[in-house]
Amino acid sequence: MITIATAECFTHGKIGLELHALAQNYKGNFGSKYIKNLDEYGEFNYNDLSIICSLFIPTIDAVKDILKVENPPKPDYLIKGIKVYDETGDKKTSKVMAEAVMKLTNCDIAIGTTAGIGHGAITIITQNYQITTISDVYSDLRKVNSEELYQRQISGIKKTIKIILLILNNKINELNTIENIEIIEK
Amino acid sequence: MITIATAECFTHGKIGLELHALAQNYKGNFGSKYIKNLDEYGEFNYNDLSIICSLFIPTIDAVKDILKVENPPKPDYLIKGIKVYDETGDKKTSKVMAEAVMKLTNCDIAIGTTAGIGHGAITIITQNYQITTISDVYSDLRKVNSEELYQRQISGIKKTIKIILLILNNKINELNTIENIEIIEK
Repeated sequence: MITIATAECFTHGKIGLELHALAQNYKGNFGSKYIKNLDEYGEFNYNDLSIICSLFIPTIDAVKDILKVENPPKPDYLIKGIKVYDETGDKKTSKVMAEAVMKLTNCDIAIGTTAGIGHGAITIITQNYQITTISDVYSDLRKVNSEELYQRQISGIKKTIKIILLILNNKINELNTIENIEIIEK
Repeated sequence: MITIATAECFTHGKIGLELHALAQNYKGNFGSKYIKNLDEYGEFNYNDLSIICSLFIPTIDAVKDILKVENPPKPDYLIKGIKVYDETGDKKTSKVMAEAVMKLTNCDIAIGTTAGIGHGAITIITQNYQITTISDVYSDLRKVNSEELYQRQISGIKKTIKIILLILNNKINELNTIENIEIIEK
């Protein structure tokens, strides 16, 4: 069994939900929403996948109180407690969030996401790799452009799901074809 | 500012997301999905609402490791770590989940949801009330009927949102018009 736990901000816990639908073989309205070509990735048996939790963590207080991070990166702005960073801060914080949820749950794969001003950032941590990337859509959380925020979210979800499916199907080499990806071998 | 935190199972964190969309005034694709008649509830200013976190907690391990519940009710069944209770167990566990997320975050309103075999259960805890209800749809998580599970989820989300909107707009008396609701004044 491979276990996954997520701590998500701009992707609203939807990465975890998408993988949960796959793991539980849910269909139709309850099924996966973003994966169209699952067979093309390989023959991984998704019955061997378990989602421990999928956490929507928008506020700095939740990073401290739920993820138990004592000193998270200081946000550049706070919107009703919601942490807002630039892209550099988002990369750092998505890593902190992934590390925290991995430490709490002892999962095999941890995912952290957050997006303030910029493309947002996603960090995926496995036993062997630490992978960080950004979405393909720029937005600024302070300006509340709902459609732009939605497009940034969709881009982040799809990109992360693609990376996870490649990892599960042992296609690590193909990760290099993804734009703006940083892969650190541990 | 009124703060809300959720620990959700069968509603997949979507109650928290719906309220977050309201609190942040998100529109269109990024806006609320289940509320059609917001004005009818009253004049509460949703800018005074903040969602601290919305947690999808399907597994018993996440109840222990994320919600920090040392001895949660023992599930009747486990499906890949996912806790499955009957309706009595769900009522008990949704209360445990709500209490746990309230203790962790110190929020004003906490919501816990879980559904195994039955209509599922939802507990809402405020400063003055403990409210428990069930969805209007029966299902059995072990049988993986995706459409039935989906309908149970939608019912649970809509019913909870209705209760929260009545609470925020100080229409406590109207809660009694909701079917299968148990209200305990503290």
